[in-house]
Amino acid sequence: MALRLVVFYGSVRSERQGIRAARFILNKCRERGHEVALIDPVEYQLPLLDKMYKEYEPGRAPEALQRMARIIIPADGYVVVSGEYNHTVPPALANLLDHFLEEYFWKPSAIVCYSAGAFGGVRASIALRAMLAEMGMSSIPSVLPIPTVQHAFDDEGRPTDEVYHKRAARFLDELEWYAYALREARKSPCVRGECAGEQLVSSAGAK
Amino acid sequence: MALRLVVFYGSVRSERQGIRAARFILNKCRERGHEVALIDPVEYQLPLLDKMYKEYEPGRAPEALQRMARIIIPADGYVVVSGEYNHTVPPALANLLDHFLEEYFWKPSAIVCYSAGAFGGVRASIALRAMLAEMGMSSIPSVLPIPTVQHAFDDEGRPTDEVYHKRAARFLDELEWYAYALREARKSPCVRGECAGEQLVSSAGAK
Amino acid sequence: MALRLVVFYGSVRSERQGIRAARFILNKCRERGHEVALIDPVEYQLPLLDKMYKEYEPGRAPEALQRMARIIIPADGYVVVSGEYNHTVPPALANLLDHFLEEYFWKPSAIVCYSAGAFGGVRASIALRAMLAEMGMSSIPSVLPIPTVQHAFDDEGRPTDEVYHKRAARFLDELEWYAYALREARKSPCVRGECAGEQLVSSAGAK
Amino acid sequence: MALRLVVFYGSVRSERQGIRAARFILNKCRERGHEVALIDPVEYQLPLLDKMYKEYEPGRAPEALQRMARIIIPADGYVVVSGEYNHTVPPALANLLDHFLEEYFWKPSAIVCYSAGAFGGVRASIALRAMLAEMGMSSIPSVLPIPTVQHAFDDEGRPTDEVYHKRAARFLDELEWYAYALREARKSPCVRGECAGEQLVSSAGAK
Repeated sequence: MALRLVVFYGSVRSERQGIRAARFILNKCRERGHEVALIDPVEYQLPLLDKMYKEYEPGRAPEALQRMARIIIPADGYVVVSGEYNHTVPPALANLLDHFLEEYFWKPSAIVCYSAGAFGGVRASIALRAMLAEMGMSSIPSVLPIPTVQHAFDDEGRPTDEVYHKRAARFLDELEWYAYALREARKSPCVRGECAGEQLVSSAGAK
Repeated sequence: MALRLVVFYGSVRSERQGIRAARFILNKCRERGHEVALIDPVEYQLPLLDKMYKEYEPGRAPEALQRMARIIIPADGYVVVSGEYNHTVPPALANLLDHFLEEYFWKPSAIVCYSAGAFGGVRASIALRAMLAEMGMSSIPSVLPIPTVQHAFDDEGRPTDEVYHKRAARFLDELEWYAYALREARKSPCVRGECAGEQLVSSAGAK
Repeated sequence: MALRLVVFYGSVRSERQGIRAARFILNKCRERGHEVALIDPVEYQLPLLDKMYKEYEPGRAPEALQRMARIIIPADGYVVVSGEYNHTVPPALANLLDHFLEEYFWKPSAIVCYSAGAFGGVRASIALRAMLAEMGMSSIPSVLPIPTVQHAFDDEGRPTDEVYHKRAARFLDELEWYAYALREARKSPCVRGECAGEQLVSSAGAK
Repeated sequence: MALRLVVFYGSVRSERQGIRAARFILNKCRERGHEVALIDPVEYQLPLLDKMYKEYEPGRAPEALQRMARIIIPADGYVVVSGEYNHTVPPALANLLDHFLEEYFWKPSAIVCYSAGAFGGVRASIALRAMLAEMGMSSIPSVLPIPTVQHAFDDEGRPTDEVYHKRAARFLDELEWYAYALREARKSPCVRGECAGEQLVSSAGAK
């Protein structure tokens, strides 16, 4: 009954601090009993997009994409942990996400954004709203912004300020609500007396 | 079992053409057996936002807001029909929507955008993605863009090109899927053995 | 040699606080010796856009638009003081700006954004970047964000924290640089041995 | 007196078509007598951002960054040729641009956007507006959108439809106007009787 979740993180900088926010939310998902995996671009080393996962023959995609696919396909929802580069989404994060598409359909996403400064990376969330929706995983209403991320958590992602426990709880309550709602709907083959399930997925796949 | 839907339209210009797109989608919702109402700013004549509906004592909001509330509150989903003014959302549309907030929570929205030119108003959809999500009614992945709206429909909203029947069908299939999924979830008082329903709504109301 | 500047402000709410930020920047422009006017929607009471200024016969636009035009046309630059409603531009502000177009061409704009909360309204600046550029008055790189605006200034726009003097100085240094640069270029009839001035303005007017 | 311009292009896909649009605009700049260079990510092979050019000791940046710097620093203006991935800026393009910052200051940029479909990639221009402005090179008002780019030009960038000659002429007229205006202003050491030039650049560098 627990959810399968994926946390996407998107910086490969040597001095990256946002990884603390990614670990924090990963831990929080785990504490709530969910099965959760982190997709960290440092680990997967994807090149800049040439071909998407779906453009390869089944089983013929590069190993990094195959491993990502095995995590992404069965997931019930996605948490995107984003910094802000020049007021938009970091390329390493967008590049990770861009390799997949239909695999995200009919599931929710949720945005955690962070910055070294005072505004928590909230400007990146504007571009992410459009991007995640176009990818078929519209983001849930609440966003979890984290200003001065370098001070907000320790290396293992433990918050220095108790308030983050409460904020994460509310944020994940909401993600769970959407993830369960859409999972239920994906199960039932028929809506309004007509068959939806697979059919809808494939028509959307062709959009 | 049918849905209750609201179509928001947002131009008050004397020469407005987008009303054709609003009528088209209204008709399509009706043909599919849904109960659907149009909120047209010309009819409601709201002033620029001073106080939101929720800021009035119950029953004391101006009559136009009361009428809107009676339509918006019981709805299962919202279709937003948007032009594009200077690459963003027309103020008359944003102003209509801004008068409400919690009333939209836990329901989906869907974007129809249009323009007199070739690009179908798709730039307005970027700002709408962020706006609708922040309002608690994240938009479904598909968008229905309508270029040269003045030629796409007649005055009653009948399309001049058959392709719009197919596009609307796919778009509304998707909206229905989300609307039924979230409606089911709103009904069930408990998620993961814990009580969600009302409680979640009110905590989100406080965000 | 001083500049002629216009400050646009965009809230008509009874409890509006952003007017303090507008007064602050107005005072700062004046202190620097510029001729500066405030356009406050409460004073002009424009209805939601029906016809733009340019759509009226010369001299036949409603009095409020005529008065605005007399301020906007001779200006060398524009400061837009924006709140953030549902992560985008307040409709009252967009509606003010939307009534004009060619009148802004070949001049710079600059964004001051504010909020009652911690993020200074920076999300509204994303939609404003696109909007102001499309209006022919691309915004200068620096933005002046003001979090908790209700505490940042007194009623007359005097800052409670000295840091705003320094921030405004840097921001207005930059606006002046662009405003003088573009004013010089508007004066010279010829660029690269070819005639630019009027001609460019009118071709752009037709875009 | 001619300008020094840089065209940034941002796809590394094997089947990329946007390179035709990049070649088209490159040729157009050259025909007008400007010195223009193409920065193509395939040629430079930058990794995902770790350190920016300015974070290296002078002369110690990797060779690809040094070569880019030699082109970017003396330029008078930048043309950004952007596709649209999931309604925002392609990561390969953002990644190229993100390696530099102060090097762009006090100069204009201009957006060419393209897509394989009908909307010309105009949604990417929304994120680009914010991004380029934050980078200190606010984009000029006009955008040059190119729908179905694969049919709009041949391999060498020659347009199949004459209209692109006219569109490019108007677009580059405008870019030139801004590039000359800002170049003049960068030259003059003093604005309003006070010293601007270098000083302004360095204070902005610290923003």
